Amino acid sequence: MFRRAYSSALLEDAVDQLASLPGVGRRTALRLALHLLDEPRENVEQFAGSILRLRRDVRHCPVCGMISDDGACPLCDDARRDRTTICVVESLRDVLSIENTGQYHGLYHILGGIISPIDGIGPDDLSIRSLCDRLEGGGVSEVIMALSTSMEGETTAYYLYKQIARFPLKITAIARGVGFGDDLEYTDELTLGRSIAGRQPFQP
Amino acid sequence: MFRRAYSSALLEDAVDQLASLPGVGRRTALRLALHLLDEPRENVEQFAGSILRLRRDVRHCPVCGMISDDGACPLCDDARRDRTTICVVESLRDVLSIENTGQYHGLYHILGGIISPIDGIGPDDLSIRSLCDRLEGGGVSEVIMALSTSMEGETTAYYLYKQIARFPLKITAIARGVGFGDDLEYTDELTLGRSIAGRQPFQP
Repeated sequence: MFRRAYSSALLEDAVDQLASLPGVGRRTALRLALHLLDEPRENVEQFAGSILRLRRDVRHCPVCGMISDDGACPLCDDARRDRTTICVVESLRDVLSIENTGQYHGLYHILGGIISPIDGIGPDDLSIRSLCDRLEGGGVSEVIMALSTSMEGETTAYYLYKQIARFPLKITAIARGVGFGDDLEYTDELTLGRSIAGRQPFQP
Repeated sequence: MFRRAYSSALLEDAVDQLASLPGVGRRTALRLALHLLDEPRENVEQFAGSILRLRRDVRHCPVCGMISDDGACPLCDDARRDRTTICVVESLRDVLSIENTGQYHGLYHILGGIISPIDGIGPDDLSIRSLCDRLEGGGVSEVIMALSTSMEGETTAYYLYKQIARFPLKITAIARGVGFGDDLEYTDELTLGRSIAGRQPFQP
């Protein structure tokens, strides 16, 4: 179908930028751009400003990779956290998800990705050496692997295991099984099979 | 469920702003913010800049309400457009949709909304007077109403009709009926009923 260009280069440019966001198509991008065009100018300036500040001013903890506003890591520098346990995750997103459970009180180590030859991401692109440095320092008694169950996640976990097995500590992985609220009927065979193999004593 | 605050005020602020977009919930907003955090700084600056420029620099045509980059209306100032026909629409979005069909070559008049007492929008909030001024100037032989079929759209069309009926011109409305590719079975009764009442000579 013949589609005319928008009459405005400014609009087209904003649509292009919004459409570069994950999960946002050109139709949605146009809707968002027209919404922003209708908003009071101060609101749009605040909107753009908050995104700029996020990217410009956020700092990353050199130890665990967590973000912070002022350079002090909100996790590493928190005296109430259990410093004997490190949970290894792929990304900041996973830290936020685990923190939301309120079930974990130790420290984290953000790898910054997982090993994925297809995407050209090898072990050297991840912060694995810095994890070894942390363990070298001593004081850590358990490393919890909280990586995804994909092929890449399993590969990364295995590689990590080989790197850290030499340290005198417990290496664990988060439990896999049927999720709460999931129907057995709709649970995939691999998950269901593993949840049976990994069955636990019933706690009434 | 107990949910901890994000550790970063900068992140929280960006999530708040992104979640203010239509159709974007807090979960999606967090995903977008983390994506932007991972992007190269220049890209994020371009992103924010294009949105700022859109809101700051876009001009609205004082005659029809269309947007332009430099003050010259891409429609009113286009000598190839048919100046005897004005299509009345609710918003800029509708102009873009109609332009995309490539079927209309006249001018537009953007009302900037529709009459909606619930939202406190009355006739005086819409650019109805400026439409009358355009018609007063003469040279227009047809006004096409391309408003939505909602109660508010019908009310607005009726109000408009009363305002412009005194001018010597044809007043038409876009055709309503069963859309191309729609199943009769799934078409609502009102639409189907009207499409039978408004049947046209068959053109083989």
